[in-house]
Amino acid sequence: MKFSPVVQELIDALKCLPGVGAKSAQRMAFHLLERNRKGGAKLAHSLEKAMTEIGHCQECRNFTEFDLCEICQSPKRKLSTNLCIVESPGDVIAIEQTGEFTGKYFVLMGHLSPIDGIGPNDLGLDILAKQFASGQFEEVILATNPTVEGEATAHYIAELANEYSISMSRIAHGVPVGGELEYVDGNTLSHALSGRKQYSL
Amino acid sequence: MKFSPVVQELIDALKCLPGVGAKSAQRMAFHLLERNRKGGAKLAHSLEKAMTEIGHCQECRNFTEFDLCEICQSPKRKLSTNLCIVESPGDVIAIEQTGEFTGKYFVLMGHLSPIDGIGPNDLGLDILAKQFASGQFEEVILATNPTVEGEATAHYIAELANEYSISMSRIAHGVPVGGELEYVDGNTLSHALSGRKQYSL
Repeated sequence: MKFSPVVQELIDALKCLPGVGAKSAQRMAFHLLERNRKGGAKLAHSLEKAMTEIGHCQECRNFTEFDLCEICQSPKRKLSTNLCIVESPGDVIAIEQTGEFTGKYFVLMGHLSPIDGIGPNDLGLDILAKQFASGQFEEVILATNPTVEGEATAHYIAELANEYSISMSRIAHGVPVGGELEYVDGNTLSHALSGRKQYSL
Repeated sequence: MKFSPVVQELIDALKCLPGVGAKSAQRMAFHLLERNRKGGAKLAHSLEKAMTEIGHCQECRNFTEFDLCEICQSPKRKLSTNLCIVESPGDVIAIEQTGEFTGKYFVLMGHLSPIDGIGPNDLGLDILAKQFASGQFEEVILATNPTVEGEATAHYIAELANEYSISMSRIAHGVPVGGELEYVDGNTLSHALSGRKQYSL
């Protein structure tokens, strides 16, 4: 005995969400059917719209339903000579929320990973090379994640930027603000020590 | 700065799922957009279909897209004199998987909860009373959850069944098979003791 075909189909379809297995999918399906049919219908509509309409920004590769994303459309940013390279759209939001950066972005949508068959062209590095060649940018900030793959990707892009004599920087690695030295891993701590700054009174 | 309107709409819509907050919704949206557009489109379709087509079985109140669910349609079950009363469709599946019960079900879709405004009629107890009156059933198995609300609901239904002189039983409470006495709570253990059975060699 199984659920009725349409209920079972919904449960199976919900399992395509990351981190959702059979039990969670069942719970979600029952929640929507029992208590939130309106929300479920709205989700169906939003999903359909997003899956068909959303593409990539032609300049920075971020998700957008337009040709250019909001940031690339902004007249102020258009003139910026700084380019910040990140792995995912979530990273753009995180950096925007600090309010520290007012230049342009380039979203790789992943990192170099030969084992998964992800090479330079899958990350749009051909588009990036053209932007370097245009001569608009004076500084490239490498803000990929501080993981092995992120570092390798940063190194690859740094070599590319070097060909066009663009100055490069990497975001600082160190102890997180509010963290405790005791619980920070050794690798981070050695980065924090080697990257130490003069203390000025 | 926010995500583009359509992306933001998708993230907000995903938050209607139980246990999904802002961060999980963002992760789900990006996963579908980057890696599984086909799955996302299928989910949209399944959701829309389920939200419009699925109703309740006229006899047992379980979810189904037909007038009667698969169990209530079965000719064998139609003649059964046993009725098992459970709180949710998931409970029906759980009991069916044991293979121990071959009677009919009645799904309450919740439990009595005056504080949330859920009274007898919200659980379809008026429909249940009619089924009791029809004289089909000889035994009612009260299989609501062993929680305070579940017990109260079982008690209420037992009084109802008593009016029609139908024999009633409650599922056994005790130590779960494979569990360890040391880690079982006191309430369960006292149930296990008071419900002890003669040991026959």
